[in-house]
Amino acid sequence: MKKLINDPRAVVEESVQGFGLAYPNLVTVSTDPTFITRKDAPVGGKVGLVSGGGSGHEPLHAGFVGLGMLDAAVPGAVFTSPTPDQILPATLAANSGAGVVHIVKNYTGDVLNFETAAELAEAEGVSVRTVLVNDDVAVEDSLYTAGRRGVGGTVLVEKIAGAAAERGDDLDAVAAVGERVNANVRTMGVALSACTVPHAGTPSFDLAEDEIEIGIGIHGEPGRHRIPMENADGITDRLLEPVLADLGITSGDKVLLFVNGMGGTPLSELYIVYRRAAQVLADRGATVDRSLVGNYITALEMQGCSISVLRLDDELTGLWDAPVHTAALRWGV
Amino acid sequence: MKKLINDPRAVVEESVQGFGLAYPNLVTVSTDPTFITRKDAPVGGKVGLVSGGGSGHEPLHAGFVGLGMLDAAVPGAVFTSPTPDQILPATLAANSGAGVVHIVKNYTGDVLNFETAAELAEAEGVSVRTVLVNDDVAVEDSLYTAGRRGVGGTVLVEKIAGAAAERGDDLDAVAAVGERVNANVRTMGVALSACTVPHAGTPSFDLAEDEIEIGIGIHGEPGRHRIPMENADGITDRLLEPVLADLGITSGDKVLLFVNGMGGTPLSELYIVYRRAAQVLADRGATVDRSLVGNYITALEMQGCSISVLRLDDELTGLWDAPVHTAALRWGV
Repeated sequence: MKKLINDPRAVVEESVQGFGLAYPNLVTVSTDPTFITRKDAPVGGKVGLVSGGGSGHEPLHAGFVGLGMLDAAVPGAVFTSPTPDQILPATLAANSGAGVVHIVKNYTGDVLNFETAAELAEAEGVSVRTVLVNDDVAVEDSLYTAGRRGVGGTVLVEKIAGAAAERGDDLDAVAAVGERVNANVRTMGVALSACTVPHAGTPSFDLAEDEIEIGIGIHGEPGRHRIPMENADGITDRLLEPVLADLGITSGDKVLLFVNGMGGTPLSELYIVYRRAAQVLADRGATVDRSLVGNYITALEMQGCSISVLRLDDELTGLWDAPVHTAALRWGV
Repeated sequence: MKKLINDPRAVVEESVQGFGLAYPNLVTVSTDPTFITRKDAPVGGKVGLVSGGGSGHEPLHAGFVGLGMLDAAVPGAVFTSPTPDQILPATLAANSGAGVVHIVKNYTGDVLNFETAAELAEAEGVSVRTVLVNDDVAVEDSLYTAGRRGVGGTVLVEKIAGAAAERGDDLDAVAAVGERVNANVRTMGVALSACTVPHAGTPSFDLAEDEIEIGIGIHGEPGRHRIPMENADGITDRLLEPVLADLGITSGDKVLLFVNGMGGTPLSELYIVYRRAAQVLADRGATVDRSLVGNYITALEMQGCSISVLRLDDELTGLWDAPVHTAALRWGV
């Protein structure tokens, strides 16, 4: 295992410290327990947004803390859910009195721990709504999940619900926007290589030199099947087809096309995938109105990508375009 | 070789096509020959900025085309200089009558081909100035270079000279700002793994499982020496020390600290490197006033990073903060 780390057990702590040092005007890093808040949290009158999950998916979630997106992020150990004793103070810090929306990727540990924290927060008088993200069409249940996993769509839920909170929507309205994004986004991913969890020290699974895993999860958990290596257009078709079918994309639909890198794949390759996906959507008569290409929800140094398609309407498009100022997404500010 | 590509010989063409499809409102992709221009180029009255070089370093350079940065980018084949017949039309397209600055990384092929293109452009009545970037302190001469190589500092030259052009500086003044950034920035990098050029099909060099290359170039060309794997703090010290010594950083200096990923290293690890580098600078009494962390000038899927330090003054800081709207850097717009 060759990684730019010191003590494998200190990876999250030191990485979060470095993140805080790099963005001192944007975020505050709290330790013991660890969570990251927007510098100006809580923002008076605004619904708070909190997300979190296992580390190793950076920039998700801390990289999305800031104006127009999250008020707080809660990183667990690598690929391990954060605990309620982290999520609770993050929730309290995000609450200005207007309540807090938890955005939770559908993994059993995350769901349970956010649920516990929500109950504790309610007991302290904070209203909490939960948006469960489950956009992965690859598998119905999986290693860590009952039901579909939450993957790339999480980034879009956080951006768009964040914009709804920023414009002043109330608690139920922000949660409803988040639910609507989740209902209109689907994702599927592929791994060309495994990744290595630092405290484990060995790759989380084995892939032969000529083999890829279609429908991979963001923790390297199994997807639909392993197949021999194919070219980018073939792989893109295998990912996009189930996404479009499940979403029922038809001629005239407007969409946001999101090609996400898993961490170890060059941007140049993501553009080759984007090219094919855009061509397929155009052939279907759909209009790609917005795009996002890059490493936004990763699996450490895994090579591979995921493709997300979000069906847009005028409101979602407007909320996507609204100003955002975070470490990983920024425009209009 | 597992890559998300189709025909290895079509990698640059298809990637650039995908890039154009992802950012239709930002850039225009010209083919035969291939170059990328800002959608609204040439911008009346503004000095044009053109850069380019071998592909495989994405988002550099096409990802920096747009308001406040480059007017055109010229991608060569992977790790291969673009040709004068590409650079010339890009230069003409960037020229609004105020002349064009070429920002050239110091590699022999790039220098020669940009020089030829500059002469051809001058013959067509376009004034051209060249800013040569040579910020790499690792080696004096190298495989592809007489003198120091141009690496991470290039991103900072393009951003800051781009802002000078955008505020209306004339041709000599924009070039002078670019020279001043180059004079005040130094960089050194490390590789934990090699990368594979698609049309070659095998790794560009060999590194043992317990070995890293200090002072690596962005094409995998040799650096200073190979050493056994170390922890992140140790590696950071090895990169930062020569940078600070060469730049003569002393107590009271204000700097921009740029930790750049080589393409295959997770963001979480870059933050661990940033943490140490920020601590060392603080111990020296220097103030890290601005930061940049991420994959901005890469070597395909190479694992590793580079550290750049730019000595700031009020003018350079103001130009850094000025609005920018490109695929890879965006704020204020």
